Amino acid sequence: MDSIKILAPATVANVSCGYDVLGFCLDQVGDEMIIRKVEKKGIFISKIEGFDLPYDTALNVAGVSALEMYNHIDVDFGFEIEIYKKIKPGSGIGSSAASAVGSVFGMNELLGRPFNKTQLTTFAIKGEAIASKCEHADNLAPAIFGGFTLVKSIAPVQVLEIPTPPNLYATVVHPQIEIKTSEARAILPPEIPMDKAITQWANVGSLVHALHTNDYQLIKDSLVDVVVEPYRSKLIPHFESVKKAVVDSGALGCGISGSGPSIFSLSEGPENAKNAAEAIRSIFSKTDIAFDIYVGKINTEGVKILKG
Amino acid sequence: MDSIKILAPATVANVSCGYDVLGFCLDQVGDEMIIRKVEKKGIFISKIEGFDLPYDTALNVAGVSALEMYNHIDVDFGFEIEIYKKIKPGSGIGSSAASAVGSVFGMNELLGRPFNKTQLTTFAIKGEAIASKCEHADNLAPAIFGGFTLVKSIAPVQVLEIPTPPNLYATVVHPQIEIKTSEARAILPPEIPMDKAITQWANVGSLVHALHTNDYQLIKDSLVDVVVEPYRSKLIPHFESVKKAVVDSGALGCGISGSGPSIFSLSEGPENAKNAAEAIRSIFSKTDIAFDIYVGKINTEGVKILKG
Repeated sequence: MDSIKILAPATVANVSCGYDVLGFCLDQVGDEMIIRKVEKKGIFISKIEGFDLPYDTALNVAGVSALEMYNHIDVDFGFEIEIYKKIKPGSGIGSSAASAVGSVFGMNELLGRPFNKTQLTTFAIKGEAIASKCEHADNLAPAIFGGFTLVKSIAPVQVLEIPTPPNLYATVVHPQIEIKTSEARAILPPEIPMDKAITQWANVGSLVHALHTNDYQLIKDSLVDVVVEPYRSKLIPHFESVKKAVVDSGALGCGISGSGPSIFSLSEGPENAKNAAEAIRSIFSKTDIAFDIYVGKINTEGVKILKG
Repeated sequence: MDSIKILAPATVANVSCGYDVLGFCLDQVGDEMIIRKVEKKGIFISKIEGFDLPYDTALNVAGVSALEMYNHIDVDFGFEIEIYKKIKPGSGIGSSAASAVGSVFGMNELLGRPFNKTQLTTFAIKGEAIASKCEHADNLAPAIFGGFTLVKSIAPVQVLEIPTPPNLYATVVHPQIEIKTSEARAILPPEIPMDKAITQWANVGSLVHALHTNDYQLIKDSLVDVVVEPYRSKLIPHFESVKKAVVDSGALGCGISGSGPSIFSLSEGPENAKNAAEAIRSIFSKTDIAFDIYVGKINTEGVKILKG
C-alpha cells in the first residue's frame, strides 16, 4: 500500500470540569487527508484545500507531527500529504489536533503500524504545539483513541480510555468568531481558590464514574466548570443564554468546547441532542453571527481509514 | 429489637489526590457501640470506655448526630448510647466519623431502617462538624457505605460508591503525636497554582478509572498529591522517609490519612501490605514515637451489626 485516505475527526476538549485533561471525539465533522509514499526523502505538503494554511512543512501542523515521526524511523523514501481541511482553524473543536493526528496516523498505516496510539500521540503533540503555543494532548487523545479520554500526563504521554455510554450524543455549535487559544489561556488566573479546585476534582472524579456506570443523571450533575468557564465564557457572545436554552431543552449539560468559541452539549438520546441544536439555532439565528451546528453520537472509533 | 451492638470502622480520607472528596474504609479497627431504646425521650450517653469524651449529648459527636436524627423522627421513646472507643481521637483515621456514624446507624436499625445511607450521612455530618469545626463527609461516607467513596457534594449529600479492586490491601500507621484537624486545615493556602490543580484532577479522574478497571499500576500512578501533602507532611515527623521506605517495599503508594498524623498505604496483595508495615516499623521503632500499625483488606461493608 503506497497511498491512504484518512478521516481525522473533530474533538471537544476540557468537557466542562476536565480542563486540560478530558476530551471526546465527534462523529459529524473531520478533515480528510491523503498520505502517499514518495521516492524523495522527507515530508511534503502537496495540496491544501478548504482553508489557507502554510505549505512549508516546518510551519504546518500536519507537517511538524509528520516530521517528528519521520525522525523516529529510518526509511529511504518520503511522504506527501494532501489536506482537505473541513474543520475551521480556531473553531475550538480540535482543528489543529485533527491535522496533527491525520498525518502520523496515515504514515503509521503505510509503514505497517510500527507505532501504538500512545506513540502517535507523542508525535502529534509536536504538531499541536505549533498551533496552540504549548504542548497539550486533550484534543489529540480523543482524535487518536476515539470516545472519551483522560490525558493523565503528557511527559510521558499517558492516555486513559474512559467508556462511552451507549446513548450519549453531542451537539456542538461553532459560532464564527475568532478566539485564539493563546488568548483564551492568558485570560485564566495563575492561581485558583482551593474550594473551587476541590469542586472541580470532585466533578472530574464523578464524571469518570458516571461514564463507567452509564449514569446519565450523574453526567448531568458532573458537567460543571467552576474554574475556567467563568472567565472564558465572557469571550463568547450569547454563551449564557445558549447554555440556559440548551439545558432547559433537556440536555445533560453545556460548556465551552476547548478554548472556544464552539459550545458543546451532551444529551441522552438523539431527540434531546436535536432539541439542544434547535435551542441553539433559535438564539444564534437572531444574531448576525454565522454558525454551524453538528449533532451526532460520540465517535468511539477516532481517526480512521477512508480508503486504504 | 430494643438493643443493638454495632462496629463503626475507621476510615482513610483524601487518599492522596482526592483532598476533601475521596475516602476508603478500614477492616482492622473500629469502635463498638451499643444503642438501646429507653423509655425516657431524648438521647443519652450512658457509658464511654477507651478515651475521655464528653457525656453531654450536645458536646459528644455520637450524641450530636443522634440528636440530629432524633429531631427528624417522631417517637415516644429515647435512645441510650454506650461507646467503646477503640479509634483514638485525633489519629487521622476517622475517629469522630466512626462515632458520628455508629449512633445513627444503630438507631436506624432499631427503628426498622426508615433512612437510607445518604440520609444517615446527612445526620452524621452534624456530629462530625463538632469535632472538625467544619462540615465534611470524606470519612463519614466510607464508614457508612464501605469501600471507596467519592463525596460529590455535601449540600445536598451526594456520595458515589467507587468499586474496590479485589486484591487491594491497606497498611496504616498511627504515630501517636497530636495534629488537630483545624490546624492541619489552617496550614493550607487559600489558593493553589492552576497547573497543580490540573495535575490533581487528572489524578482523581485516573484513580477513579483505575478502581473501576482493577488497574493496580494506574492506582500507583494516581496516588500522587501535589496540593496538600507538600504542606501537611511537614507536620508529621519521618513522613518522607516512611513514604520512601513504603514505596520501595513494593506498595502502590503512600500518603497522609485525612489530616494526619496517620499515614496510609495501598498495596496489591497481602504480602506487599505486610512488607509496607515492616518498612514503617523499621523506621518508627528507631524513634521515641509510639505507634500502631493496621494491615488488612479494604472493608467493603462499612458500619455493621455485631449483635442485633
